[in-house]
Amino acid sequence: MELGLVGLGKMGGNMRERIRRAGHTVIGYDRNADLADVHSLEELVGKLSGGPRVVWVMVPAGEPTQSTIDQLAELLEPGDVVVDGGNSRWTDDEKHAEELAAKGIGFVDCGVSGGVWGLENGYALMYGGDAENVAKVQPVFDALKPEGDFGSVHAGKVGAGHFAKMVHNGIEYAMMQAYAEGWELLEKADSVTDVREVFRSWQEGTVIRSWLLDLAVNALDEDEHLDGLRGYAQDSGEGRWTVEAAIDHAVPLPAITASLFARFASRQEDSPQMKMIAALRNQFGGHAVEKK
Amino acid sequence: MELGLVGLGKMGGNMRERIRRAGHTVIGYDRNADLADVHSLEELVGKLSGGPRVVWVMVPAGEPTQSTIDQLAELLEPGDVVVDGGNSRWTDDEKHAEELAAKGIGFVDCGVSGGVWGLENGYALMYGGDAENVAKVQPVFDALKPEGDFGSVHAGKVGAGHFAKMVHNGIEYAMMQAYAEGWELLEKADSVTDVREVFRSWQEGTVIRSWLLDLAVNALDEDEHLDGLRGYAQDSGEGRWTVEAAIDHAVPLPAITASLFARFASRQEDSPQMKMIAALRNQFGGHAVEKK
Amino acid sequence: MELGLVGLGKMGGNMRERIRRAGHTVIGYDRNADLADVHSLEELVGKLSGGPRVVWVMVPAGEPTQSTIDQLAELLEPGDVVVDGGNSRWTDDEKHAEELAAKGIGFVDCGVSGGVWGLENGYALMYGGDAENVAKVQPVFDALKPEGDFGSVHAGKVGAGHFAKMVHNGIEYAMMQAYAEGWELLEKADSVTDVREVFRSWQEGTVIRSWLLDLAVNALDEDEHLDGLRGYAQDSGEGRWTVEAAIDHAVPLPAITASLFARFASRQEDSPQMKMIAALRNQFGGHAVEKK
Amino acid sequence: MELGLVGLGKMGGNMRERIRRAGHTVIGYDRNADLADVHSLEELVGKLSGGPRVVWVMVPAGEPTQSTIDQLAELLEPGDVVVDGGNSRWTDDEKHAEELAAKGIGFVDCGVSGGVWGLENGYALMYGGDAENVAKVQPVFDALKPEGDFGSVHAGKVGAGHFAKMVHNGIEYAMMQAYAEGWELLEKADSVTDVREVFRSWQEGTVIRSWLLDLAVNALDEDEHLDGLRGYAQDSGEGRWTVEAAIDHAVPLPAITASLFARFASRQEDSPQMKMIAALRNQFGGHAVEKK
Repeated sequence: MELGLVGLGKMGGNMRERIRRAGHTVIGYDRNADLADVHSLEELVGKLSGGPRVVWVMVPAGEPTQSTIDQLAELLEPGDVVVDGGNSRWTDDEKHAEELAAKGIGFVDCGVSGGVWGLENGYALMYGGDAENVAKVQPVFDALKPEGDFGSVHAGKVGAGHFAKMVHNGIEYAMMQAYAEGWELLEKADSVTDVREVFRSWQEGTVIRSWLLDLAVNALDEDEHLDGLRGYAQDSGEGRWTVEAAIDHAVPLPAITASLFARFASRQEDSPQMKMIAALRNQFGGHAVEKK
Repeated sequence: MELGLVGLGKMGGNMRERIRRAGHTVIGYDRNADLADVHSLEELVGKLSGGPRVVWVMVPAGEPTQSTIDQLAELLEPGDVVVDGGNSRWTDDEKHAEELAAKGIGFVDCGVSGGVWGLENGYALMYGGDAENVAKVQPVFDALKPEGDFGSVHAGKVGAGHFAKMVHNGIEYAMMQAYAEGWELLEKADSVTDVREVFRSWQEGTVIRSWLLDLAVNALDEDEHLDGLRGYAQDSGEGRWTVEAAIDHAVPLPAITASLFARFASRQEDSPQMKMIAALRNQFGGHAVEKK
Repeated sequence: MELGLVGLGKMGGNMRERIRRAGHTVIGYDRNADLADVHSLEELVGKLSGGPRVVWVMVPAGEPTQSTIDQLAELLEPGDVVVDGGNSRWTDDEKHAEELAAKGIGFVDCGVSGGVWGLENGYALMYGGDAENVAKVQPVFDALKPEGDFGSVHAGKVGAGHFAKMVHNGIEYAMMQAYAEGWELLEKADSVTDVREVFRSWQEGTVIRSWLLDLAVNALDEDEHLDGLRGYAQDSGEGRWTVEAAIDHAVPLPAITASLFARFASRQEDSPQMKMIAALRNQFGGHAVEKK
Repeated sequence: MELGLVGLGKMGGNMRERIRRAGHTVIGYDRNADLADVHSLEELVGKLSGGPRVVWVMVPAGEPTQSTIDQLAELLEPGDVVVDGGNSRWTDDEKHAEELAAKGIGFVDCGVSGGVWGLENGYALMYGGDAENVAKVQPVFDALKPEGDFGSVHAGKVGAGHFAKMVHNGIEYAMMQAYAEGWELLEKADSVTDVREVFRSWQEGTVIRSWLLDLAVNALDEDEHLDGLRGYAQDSGEGRWTVEAAIDHAVPLPAITASLFARFASRQEDSPQMKMIAALRNQFGGHAVEKK
């Protein structure tokens, strides 16, 4: 089939390549002309043959996605479908679906996991929308997903794809935190003389074997005690949204939230709240404080 | 080689089988005569040929392990080795090693992971002790471990095996909690119509694929919404020890500790601390309380 | 001075009484005619003499507050001031301020603390807005606040009042949780034979003496072990907003968030996430599960 | 009455003064001869008149307390009483009681709160032991405690005093953390222009007024944004013991534990666990890491 693909960055570019390898035609547009197959969204839409056209948007969440969808709402025709494969918040999806539905255009939201490994191993896909619209995109989903029985799912209505991907990332935060906490504790134990080999051994036969564990071993092979790194971790937004969604539904998420807060704390040069703790200890107990 | 194996319960019995399949001789003792090859520890030790004898203790931590080791200290001879493969706290290991060393007997501690899957897939092993003692047990370790490059590790000095296994279990707690939190949140989302299929799809191509995820899919295949279960989870002790070890080393473990506390709370019919919260809200705000 | 007061429920009714005791004129409106001094907002505004009129809105956050402000925007005149003393989210305040400013009407947001004790002890007030508008309300603030040097503050710009009150409530959550955790632990200790007397003694000379502690003692005097209560705690919304504000600012709030999650969990008949934990333990270890 | 007091540091010295002001005789011993009234424990015991003698031990927990009690066991006579007023772990108390009981000597454990304020305001006291032994110390308890109805309690059996004091400190940790989290969030809010005045105003009429809040205001008066301090907080041991006691009793303590972990994290130059998070993000997503 033919696909219009908007956004050819690290993710989008590799996805174009994987879809093409599966035998489909991809016409890609990017603001960076060096990456693009066409010079404009108009040209992209024009080059897609009639019949229901499918345009996959793979640009940053927020304004870039919104303005792309606004333009596609003008350029596409009833029966066409827009896929938002970016990291949009699930709460944006219904709004986008309504805007496009007003023109008779379908909408599918798709959470994409895979990172730098996706081109070769395939991308895990979670998508939401009406069956009719999903069906028009199905060949592309099939091209992108990993081989085998798993890796893609029609998760539900519009918004379900991004919601499922968001929860995936929330789980990811807590799993990473789990290994990180365990690693730090092992590094502190006097009796354990080779933490890296412990992690390596866990790759078979244990309850905690996983792909993330394999990556941890890779990282330790590059730098056994991670001496070269700072303990400083960004968060992508999806961890925050997971906690916010949990609050909306009154679901307690202690481990995922602890993982998010650990990242927040890691980015503070000095902790304001711990200054207050130090100040209070000094007030009531005369405990020494560390001056700057 | 020959191995004396004390404790033939669910774990010990399967381990005997796996070691025998590898061609070794195992003489097993258990208080339950139906399971045992011999009638007493004395008989077990007597049946092991001369040369360094190896006896693997696979009984519950605490008193049962202690009394077994006490008896073996009397029965064995200098150069022999005792392996504690049970769930002993790492702080017991040094004590046991010293007690046996006073008689010239070696000691190796070994954390064993594998559960009901170990017989077929192999057991992950983490062991601690002097190289000389470990070497005497090595053929048994090789028989028990999974095939392939991973699954067993000489983690360090005496105590390192149980310490590493304890941390393994701590990580396990937080990973299970991660999936559990994500699952509950997905179940609450209106847009997501098939949570089980979302979990199933995650088994390939995602960052969070793991053996535990595979098990979660198995569980959901048996009972899609886990309607038949109570939200009630035991803890084995190793999660508690992990947190205590972290406190000893001043290592923050927020995700693992949250996972332990969630289990504690799951076992309370009614939460005393939340009664106090309700009472306080009533005191200052006149908020309604729920009477029993 | 004269004040128009909209909303005469538990809080608003007592506030009217306290303001009148200070010698001011209050004209109160409520949808419940039994409580009201006038029959409509129109009548309320009509009864306020010229000069800058001040109308205090004390109705539930969300739609009720919004529709009241919408009506007041039509009825009031340039130079008048609207105070939102309800539990609005701080993010609503700027919107309300702009809507009223378009008509030349001033806006002040005010967080009010005091509960059932406010009539006699005074209400703690945190307000936000331009100095000019605050000045027009000042006599009412002075009437409502507790005697003494403390209890009211001009916290900053529009929104600062509700933001400060929200943080006050977040702190309140964690303080209540602190006492509740300590109380539960003391109740479990074999050696401690009279937990209530321990709490009572803490009211002087300790680092943790506070008004909340006094209330805890009151509650224990009514029901020594809180046997008559269920461990079930509502949350008012402000705890949730506190966590959301923290996420917006990347501030870690582990204790406040733990307190919020404990309330969420207290309201679940059975914990879905702990069902998943039980199911996973059963899958890998053959551990028994509790069936419903 | 007469009291022997061992340990005349910051706490012990002020306590001697307060007891003397109440009209009692205090004979103090300290290793530092400049502080002491006598030159040895022998001399101290010898100077106490017959009748039941009471010796209050106020030295650091662990070895110093143990060796003092060992010596007193030799020097005192049946019917005498030893009070451990230091920060001993409650698990030590029963051991000390048994050691002394073997000589017919009584034992009372006493947790003391009051810090630098105790001399003037009195010390909060929580004590455990048999009524008979407590009665022999009662005049000293009455001298030390604050005026008024509160501030001292016979909490239960031997160990109950230190247990109650330990829980007091656990609650203190979470209350301090509550204010600290709220303060940091307010400092981040654009609309709030004077956080110190918000804190000051909370001292009356709010749900969260407390002595700790008063101290926070003092601290902010000395340094409005705590710019001169590092966000670095020690922990005294009692927070750790509180969490360990909770684990023993399977009581979830999420807020207190979060407060303890925040202190641990505050003392790390760089967080090992966050290095692992950074390393994993780099592995799967190609996310940039910060090199040292």
